[in-house]
Amino acid sequence: MSKLPLGLFAATRAIAAGTLAPQDYVKQCYARAEETEPWLRAFVSRNALEDLLAQTGDGEWAGIPVGVKDLVATQDLPTTNGSPIYADQMLGHDAPIVAKIRQLGGLVFGKTVTTEFAFRQPGPTVNFWNRGHTPGGSSSGSASAVAAGVVPIALGTQTVGSVIRPAAFCGVVGLKASYGAIPRAGVFPLSGSLDHVGFLARSVNDVAYAFNTLRNRSVGEPDAIVLPAVPMDAQTGIAPSAAPRIAWLKTPHDALVTPEQKEAMAQSVAAMRKAGAVVEEFSLPDAYWRGIEMLQCLLECEAGVIHADHFKNHAALLCESIADLVKKGRNRTAYEYLEVRAAQQALRHDMMNQLKGFDAILTIPATGAAPEGLGSTGDPVFCALWSFLGLPAITLPIARSTKGLPLGLQLVAPYKQDAHLMRVARWAELSLPAVAA
Amino acid sequence: MSKLPLGLFAATRAIAAGTLAPQDYVKQCYARAEETEPWLRAFVSRNALEDLLAQTGDGEWAGIPVGVKDLVATQDLPTTNGSPIYADQMLGHDAPIVAKIRQLGGLVFGKTVTTEFAFRQPGPTVNFWNRGHTPGGSSSGSASAVAAGVVPIALGTQTVGSVIRPAAFCGVVGLKASYGAIPRAGVFPLSGSLDHVGFLARSVNDVAYAFNTLRNRSVGEPDAIVLPAVPMDAQTGIAPSAAPRIAWLKTPHDALVTPEQKEAMAQSVAAMRKAGAVVEEFSLPDAYWRGIEMLQCLLECEAGVIHADHFKNHAALLCESIADLVKKGRNRTAYEYLEVRAAQQALRHDMMNQLKGFDAILTIPATGAAPEGLGSTGDPVFCALWSFLGLPAITLPIARSTKGLPLGLQLVAPYKQDAHLMRVARWAELSLPAVAA
Repeated sequence: MSKLPLGLFAATRAIAAGTLAPQDYVKQCYARAEETEPWLRAFVSRNALEDLLAQTGDGEWAGIPVGVKDLVATQDLPTTNGSPIYADQMLGHDAPIVAKIRQLGGLVFGKTVTTEFAFRQPGPTVNFWNRGHTPGGSSSGSASAVAAGVVPIALGTQTVGSVIRPAAFCGVVGLKASYGAIPRAGVFPLSGSLDHVGFLARSVNDVAYAFNTLRNRSVGEPDAIVLPAVPMDAQTGIAPSAAPRIAWLKTPHDALVTPEQKEAMAQSVAAMRKAGAVVEEFSLPDAYWRGIEMLQCLLECEAGVIHADHFKNHAALLCESIADLVKKGRNRTAYEYLEVRAAQQALRHDMMNQLKGFDAILTIPATGAAPEGLGSTGDPVFCALWSFLGLPAITLPIARSTKGLPLGLQLVAPYKQDAHLMRVARWAELSLPAVAA
Repeated sequence: MSKLPLGLFAATRAIAAGTLAPQDYVKQCYARAEETEPWLRAFVSRNALEDLLAQTGDGEWAGIPVGVKDLVATQDLPTTNGSPIYADQMLGHDAPIVAKIRQLGGLVFGKTVTTEFAFRQPGPTVNFWNRGHTPGGSSSGSASAVAAGVVPIALGTQTVGSVIRPAAFCGVVGLKASYGAIPRAGVFPLSGSLDHVGFLARSVNDVAYAFNTLRNRSVGEPDAIVLPAVPMDAQTGIAPSAAPRIAWLKTPHDALVTPEQKEAMAQSVAAMRKAGAVVEEFSLPDAYWRGIEMLQCLLECEAGVIHADHFKNHAALLCESIADLVKKGRNRTAYEYLEVRAAQQALRHDMMNQLKGFDAILTIPATGAAPEGLGSTGDPVFCALWSFLGLPAITLPIARSTKGLPLGLQLVAPYKQDAHLMRVARWAELSLPAVAA
């Protein structure tokens, strides 16, 4: 296979320094796609090499090919939302986040496979590390394409576990920033009070750089928040935090975790302690864990309205899992919906108190390595609470399973503490043993 | 009766210029209260003159007594929310908007009467112009106190028609800025997606000056928006707009309007045309008028959650109109609630298109003059749509009824066009004949 192209941050530095021609970088990425796409199936549609080269101009992201989840509006390729209902949809305009990428010189390399409407029904993408295993979902294509080195950065979305879980299953870094921090306009919604746009890339520097570039600068959308950039050095990237104080979370779902995942976490904890971190066992009040049920309520209510027309007029083309949300949403009362919204706000802000004295929560991103088979994208239970609360979360690869599949960890910080979370994650990335490719 | 103290803007200029001692201004206002309060009953509680004088210091609002609706948290007086359940509630802290007033040197003159929880059940306040008539509600005390000249500015809140209607009934200027523009923290909610904080004062300059001083500067609360200040000259205030293009709204509720109100509007339109305005008849698509029913849905759902505990544990102390909201809210589904929220957003933003070519909508603020009796605060139907849509709205006095009660007009602009609305309102204020006191 061709050489792995540079990661996002390194590529922009090399292109800015003149040591890498943006056209060459585009060609390297394109070559990877040509090699892997026949079996990886990460993309729904792609731009032709000559078009990408013709679009390659100036700018901070000159020559950077971006994988855009096929739930995000783009001017030049179909936007299918992973649904046959939208198989031919040409929107003819870019979502603001895509427009920003292009404005900086970045390229829409292609639209990456999403599960149907970013919920459960899988697409055709396989796991880069073992094609008999799921890449996770819903940002399946984004995770696989980044793992394969086809694109250095891809856009994902997370409503329950759709950035963190596929990133972990594919051995890449995934960032789900605080709720509202990344522009959502032009992204087909699943559940407005839970939907996040996130980034998948190959290092903490890379997702941090994407965060700095693509986060909200003004409050143009309802729910949007404006966060400061992560301080980054132009050459070295993020300065890591000092050895952090880590809250190692015990959860009511720990029985689901595989022995391999447990072992990898224990080794990571040992390595972090050795590197100077304080890692203490930590638990959250039960009220937090009810957040997973509460997330289900929001999802049913909100997706129920979003998909009402699909359910009514396109039932034959709608997957069962979405139809089920619509049906369940009909039985929810406004009263329970609004009670949950109030609890969500209250718990989001209370996390600051729970985490006093700690820099971040350490937890698993998934029950273990990507499960075998392509019929399910895996269990999002270890991501759901952070989606419900809208807290910033990041996953890093830490090990490989005996079958060679990636295992990761997840770090979570209080609301709006995205920059500090990335500094802690950078510390972890530097302190943990590198994972063999 | 003692002399009418200066209005807000004029008072701050005179105090800044040294031609009026802030202590003297406080004493003038206090004297008005002593004369009027025995029958006007605009205040639930007031600070003593010696306390007000002791607090009178420096700042842009030095010596400015403010009426604070008794739904807004204050450190130094009870906050009753107009409810016997909270009769003795001492919160011991200021809502951010009150803290801002104090920081500028402004004084909490007293807490003004609100209907129970800012809904229908009236308090004891009477109309300054005819004590057998309602002052309107829910910002009853704020409107009456400003009309009486006791305070030059008062805080109100509007969920359906609670700033504009009492302002019109009391012959003062009322401003309900765009949804989210004025800080709401520390204000007891009625319905989160409808609640606005507003201002009641005696001129457009006065409410504009309050808007500039007290609007959100940063997005600290969910739903908060940041709008630019209204450009004001330090001596003359707002520069009026050029002769505006006015959309004179026909509504499905026009049959409710009294002949006197109709006649006053017709005369105002004639005067505005004479002064150079283009006034054209205008109507909105039916989808907009369904907004009044949709507002009722939001109110029942949201108030239902807010008052669930009062309904359960304090039923004997809760007025029927709030209990009724709670009961009705229980029957609403999440589906209809979320459909309405989506329609609210869509219509809010669509108004810009409807109003293309016009500067503002002209409409009535109420069916006519304040109705006789104190058992009801009047019909909010001509305010409800603007509350639902979250559009900026302002009312000005234009005439007197044969019984000497004020009649007003209302101007409404697209979302976030608050500054332009105030310039148009200033033009109207200067172009229309003055209303005899």
